[in-house]
Amino acid sequence: NDIVHRLPAQSPMLFAAKKEKNLSFETIAQALGREEVAVAALFYGQAKASPEDIANLSKVLGISEEELNKTEMTGWPDRGRQMEMPPKEPLVYRLFEIVQNYGYAYKAVMNEKFGDGIMSAITFSTKVEREVDEKGEWCKITLRGKWLPYSRF
Amino acid sequence: NDIVHRLPAQSPMLFAAKKEKNLSFETIAQALGREEVAVAALFYGQAKASPEDIANLSKVLGISEEELNKTEMTGWPDRGRQMEMPPKEPLVYRLFEIVQNYGYAYKAVMNEKFGDGIMSAITFSTKVEREVDEKGEWCKITLRGKWLPYSRF
Amino acid sequence: NDIVHRLPAQSPMLFAAKKEKNLSFETIAQALGREEVAVAALFYGQAKASPEDIANLSKVLGISEEELNKTEMTGWPDRGRQMEMPPKEPLVYRLFEIVQNYGYAYKAVMNEKFGDGIMSAITFSTKVEREVDEKGEWCKITLRGKWLPYSRF
Amino acid sequence: NDIVHRLPAQSPMLFAAKKEKNLSFETIAQALGREEVAVAALFYGQAKASPEDIANLSKVLGISEEELNKTEMTGWPDRGRQMEMPPKEPLVYRLFEIVQNYGYAYKAVMNEKFGDGIMSAITFSTKVEREVDEKGEWCKITLRGKWLPYSRF
Amino acid sequence: NDIVHRLPAQSPMLFAAKKEKNLSFETIAQALGREEVAVAALFYGQAKASPEDIANLSKVLGISEEELNKTEMTGWPDRGRQMEMPPKEPLVYRLFEIVQNYGYAYKAVMNEKFGDGIMSAITFSTKVEREVDEKGEWCKITLRGKWLPYSRF
Amino acid sequence: NDIVHRLPAQSPMLFAAKKEKNLSFETIAQALGREEVAVAALFYGQAKASPEDIANLSKVLGISEEELNKTEMTGWPDRGRQMEMPPKEPLVYRLFEIVQNYGYAYKAVMNEKFGDGIMSAITFSTKVEREVDEKGEWCKITLRGKWLPYSRF
Amino acid sequence: NDIVHRLPAQSPMLFAAKKEKNLSFETIAQALGREEVAVAALFYGQAKASPEDIANLSKVLGISEEELNKTEMTGWPDRGRQMEMPPKEPLVYRLFEIVQNYGYAYKAVMNEKFGDGIMSAITFSTKVEREVDEKGEWCKITLRGKWLPYSRF
Amino acid sequence: NDIVHRLPAQSPMLFAAKKEKNLSFETIAQALGREEVAVAALFYGQAKASPEDIANLSKVLGISEEELNKTEMTGWPDRGRQMEMPPKEPLVYRLFEIVQNYGYAYKAVMNEKFGDGIMSAITFSTKVEREVDEKGEWCKITLRGKWLPYSRF
Amino acid sequence: NDIVHRLPAQSPMLFAAKKEKNLSFETIAQALGREEVAVAALFYGQAKASPEDIANLSKVLGISEEELNKTEMTGWPDRGRQMEMPPKEPLVYRLFEIVQNYGYAYKAVMNEKFGDGIMSAITFSTKVEREVDEKGEWCKITLRGKWLPYSRF
Amino acid sequence: NDIVHRLPAQSPMLFAAKKEKNLSFETIAQALGREEVAVAALFYGQAKASPEDIANLSKVLGISEEELNKTEMTGWPDRGRQMEMPPKEPLVYRLFEIVQNYGYAYKAVMNEKFGDGIMSAITFSTKVEREVDEKGEWCKITLRGKWLPYSRF
Repeated sequence: NDIVHRLPAQSPMLFAAKKEKNLSFETIAQALGREEVAVAALFYGQAKASPEDIANLSKVLGISEEELNKTEMTGWPDRGRQMEMPPKEPLVYRLFEIVQNYGYAYKAVMNEKFGDGIMSAITFSTKVEREVDEKGEWCKITLRGKWLPYSRF
Repeated sequence: NDIVHRLPAQSPMLFAAKKEKNLSFETIAQALGREEVAVAALFYGQAKASPEDIANLSKVLGISEEELNKTEMTGWPDRGRQMEMPPKEPLVYRLFEIVQNYGYAYKAVMNEKFGDGIMSAITFSTKVEREVDEKGEWCKITLRGKWLPYSRF
Repeated sequence: NDIVHRLPAQSPMLFAAKKEKNLSFETIAQALGREEVAVAALFYGQAKASPEDIANLSKVLGISEEELNKTEMTGWPDRGRQMEMPPKEPLVYRLFEIVQNYGYAYKAVMNEKFGDGIMSAITFSTKVEREVDEKGEWCKITLRGKWLPYSRF
Repeated sequence: NDIVHRLPAQSPMLFAAKKEKNLSFETIAQALGREEVAVAALFYGQAKASPEDIANLSKVLGISEEELNKTEMTGWPDRGRQMEMPPKEPLVYRLFEIVQNYGYAYKAVMNEKFGDGIMSAITFSTKVEREVDEKGEWCKITLRGKWLPYSRF
Repeated sequence: NDIVHRLPAQSPMLFAAKKEKNLSFETIAQALGREEVAVAALFYGQAKASPEDIANLSKVLGISEEELNKTEMTGWPDRGRQMEMPPKEPLVYRLFEIVQNYGYAYKAVMNEKFGDGIMSAITFSTKVEREVDEKGEWCKITLRGKWLPYSRF
Repeated sequence: NDIVHRLPAQSPMLFAAKKEKNLSFETIAQALGREEVAVAALFYGQAKASPEDIANLSKVLGISEEELNKTEMTGWPDRGRQMEMPPKEPLVYRLFEIVQNYGYAYKAVMNEKFGDGIMSAITFSTKVEREVDEKGEWCKITLRGKWLPYSRF
Repeated sequence: NDIVHRLPAQSPMLFAAKKEKNLSFETIAQALGREEVAVAALFYGQAKASPEDIANLSKVLGISEEELNKTEMTGWPDRGRQMEMPPKEPLVYRLFEIVQNYGYAYKAVMNEKFGDGIMSAITFSTKVEREVDEKGEWCKITLRGKWLPYSRF
Repeated sequence: NDIVHRLPAQSPMLFAAKKEKNLSFETIAQALGREEVAVAALFYGQAKASPEDIANLSKVLGISEEELNKTEMTGWPDRGRQMEMPPKEPLVYRLFEIVQNYGYAYKAVMNEKFGDGIMSAITFSTKVEREVDEKGEWCKITLRGKWLPYSRF
Repeated sequence: NDIVHRLPAQSPMLFAAKKEKNLSFETIAQALGREEVAVAALFYGQAKASPEDIANLSKVLGISEEELNKTEMTGWPDRGRQMEMPPKEPLVYRLFEIVQNYGYAYKAVMNEKFGDGIMSAITFSTKVEREVDEKGEWCKITLRGKWLPYSRF
Repeated sequence: NDIVHRLPAQSPMLFAAKKEKNLSFETIAQALGREEVAVAALFYGQAKASPEDIANLSKVLGISEEELNKTEMTGWPDRGRQMEMPPKEPLVYRLFEIVQNYGYAYKAVMNEKFGDGIMSAITFSTKVEREVDEKGEWCKITLRGKWLPYSRF
């Protein structure tokens, strides 16, 4: 599948080990002490693995640390390259559409609450949760970033 | 400013009244019993105003219901038009970048938690919260949508 | 042909088996109890195969379930990637043109019939039918999706 | 709202009369003996009005035939201009997404059923229907076009 | 050369045989009873070969019918993919420029001559002719398509 | 309608006079001794009017030569600006599609017939003809341009 | 000139006052205690004016504070809109080209010096200096931003 | 990772040697007597290596001069190809955003300081520095280019 | 005509005066002691007028210096904005095509003749000449720019 | 390097022979009796080699005519494909920028000198010259094309 060409070389190895051991991102995330989205980002080459991540991944996936260290996992990720924008994948498009429809509404509310600045996407964390009620299943995504006011210069 | 050309005709009137009465979106949201982002979306023409919204907006903004009803506020919004993608505004770009960087990580985690489907951006709500800790101010955005599995046909 | 590079790895295997056994999508669809368009979407990697689909495909195509399960057919499809938009293929362009020409007319009629919302493309089914009359052959495509009203928040 | 700049000059007049008389497209469509989508297309300048359409629109909207004839309604429509592609409006995007996801599946099924050719988008009709069942409301769109085989030359 | 990547697999085989036998499209077109442009379109994978075309091509090119049938030549062509638009090739750009410069002039004249509709590009034939006069060589391209009036619905 | 913004200022005046006098391009073309497409191109500002064209247009349209000379009609046309590419108008798109589908086939045939060069779109003429047979109406477009071989340097 | 349409309404007033009083950005920057680039950004609507900025601008430009406060100067800037990318202006293009040519070299050096993160463009300042040596005039631009390491989550 | 496809063939060899010898760009830059950014640009194929650069790189990396000379390192670089614009990488995007937000402010200040012209990106040098204060780490980038006034002709 | 919207405000005034006085660019260029292309660039707002240019233009065009100085003619031009790229105008497209077809050939020859660098487009002049021989009229464009070698840093 | 994928197969062979024999384009051009730019265009597959070119290239490069004839060198070039527009390479961008900045100025001057038409890029030659004066090195590019007036039809 085409996305593979846009991923770093370690991605197929990681996904194959995960599939073979029948592991969920939830299990791997617990083993690494990280959020599931962060772990999936590691698999897609969108985050840097620390030495502890390598040690833990080695244990949970059954791949030697040496082999993991030979990949680009501990290098500096070249982020964003696996995506074409606008996204064609319906699930990802819905997230894009939220930005497209509510972008200026978020800005208006955030400027009012915080002043002139931005929410950092770097000093930042995110998680996905599943909620169930009588109407069915709900997906809840939380984005939490440091507020950065514009410097005066 | 250029965004005005992409907004429906009622937007300047609403923003002017809000400025004159020195109202925050928080105050207006309380008067309408709605979230701040939803209210800002009403101001930008990205959501439809219900008759109660009109009644409440009339009171809080001091514009007659008749005048509000003459605008396109109660019509069917033509959503998304006020945005160019990718967004040039740094605040909005950061949200876009989150989708660009973590889009496939979200998909991987959501497919694993829910199966094959999407998080609805229509049966959906969102809010912005401000948190303060010893490291400073944090912006927290919550996205919550109904999970829709693909129909089998 | 170039589209092959945009398809998942199982696609050539499936098309080859279909050709060798000289099967139509109609026949395969009957074997799977699904619509022809859904089956073609499986072949192009645009839909997820259930375990029963795998069992039935195995029988009708003469490929072992094990071999089918080794492919990405039961994984989470990365939808939309096989298409460039606007489509260059004349047959597909005509569908695109219908959206381009009648998009706002559909919206106006649907808003009036249903209120503010969208027709889901996920809780959704579609089929193609052939009709013949004295003027010749007609192609009839039916799109049927759940109506989703915008949440109030 | 921005779409107005992309519409022919008669559109605001027609929508205003429709709103003032509180008419639905259903009512107007019955008065014209045409489909609702076709009537909405007339309002958006995406279809040509025949002399009978003018006569009927005059009656139902209360605008003189003379005034209607002075507009571009009876001229040759410059179709497609009111849309940006990909569409930003969520309702219209869902239709675009169906083409994006199922385009090649439709082609595969249609080639098999009809041979090498296309479904005409000109010798063509379409309608929108509302269906209700225990799961809620469903929107059904039918596209019906003449099959055109490629000429041999 | 890059265009090869956008062509179906049979194209290089066909061009190689044509070159080896030192055949012109004119000769091959006579052998197939078709227009030269149609034959070139077969070579570029932009048209479907009929069984007679296969038989005739086999004879004239010295490739067995079996080998030709193994290719995608008798499958459903995925048209348009070999081109980037706007075309960079100067010869092809000139044709594009004619559409760009005279597109609305053609439309105005055609609407006046035929009414509201289009010239079909499917029920369609085309040819290229060479004319010589005292001013030099002239290239004459003829496009001839069925007129399709818009359906009333 | 939006195309008006992309046309030179004289266009609405010319179209209005043509409509008021109920003249066809055929009639005007005869009065000018030119092809209908060339006359329509004059109306859309895609061709330069000669002094005789001005004289003849003045007579046939009933506009004084002085008034015509005050416009940009006798200036140097800024060609191509009235079109967006790819064209959204279905009639014009069909012409674009012909270039997209047959572009390389034309090139192959033309190179074979003429050598390395292009068909000029400047030393060029074109016309539209209507043909009727038992299958209905056909539109025939002829493009005729000087062959220009690449200079050797 | 076209850029005016992309600027907020106060920009022409500010530039006119600056021209009339024959003030340089250097003088105004000294009056505001800010960098020249920051002041120019205020003029182009790319930065927010503080109450002191308004007071100082009022004095130096001779426009009353009340008039300045009526503009969008103290509102939340909608940044980035005045630019098309890639920039067509040769001076601005050179800056764009530096990012294009050295972007990954900067990244490699910065990752090595600081680890995984980014240089903030918000907690950020910049200045332009003129240097003269025997080879002529040199322009020196300094960009200084807070280093933000990626959060671990 | 995808960027590799856009780099010249020597890049992987250089990065591998650097990694194996555990060398920083700082160390290599000292060995070459050049800036770190210039050295990283050499590694990415964005700068031409002089004979002394080859000699020094050979020593510091432990690759023979002959082997280095066989690569394209001493050829004419095809600059800019390794980047897509706008950049998706967050670190590089921040630099792009600075140009997008402050481009016209830089121009206004530079025109005032120097007159009509540009800062050269060719007769140009740049460096990255790390600064630490009580607020943390800061990244300082300096761009220094010859001022080129427009020729009068 | 649309280009007017992309030109500075003085352009129509200049062209009108030129037309009224029936002056050629050749005449105006002689009056200013500049090249015709430079003068046309002044008319299109692509170059800055010096005080002597203003004095000379005032005389030759019969517009007072005061009126000329009130325009943006003596300001800093915002170059490049009047063009869409790729150009649609056939005359301008031919120049673009020359860059497209011969760009890398120019680069190869220039690198060989001069080393690693660029031909400046700022320290630059250009002219257009007309030549006539037995084959007809020829247009000769000369581009002459300072060679700028890349700095070593 | 990426451009190789966009070049015809003979290009690497030609460049390798040129490098091995240490030949300049100047030398090869003399051997072929052609301009250096034309020869570089042959190397990049942007021009067709005549039989004499093949004979001369064979001699000067030491490659047999047979081997050269097996390549696409004597076929019909697929021009323009090796370039992305706008060009990212700074040297080529400067040429593009000249068209962008002076395009309409060239058109105005050329229309005045020649009337309504274009300068041919086919009946065309070009050369690069090096000039040295006290200010340094200058690059002079000459473009010379046949003037083609628009046909009247």
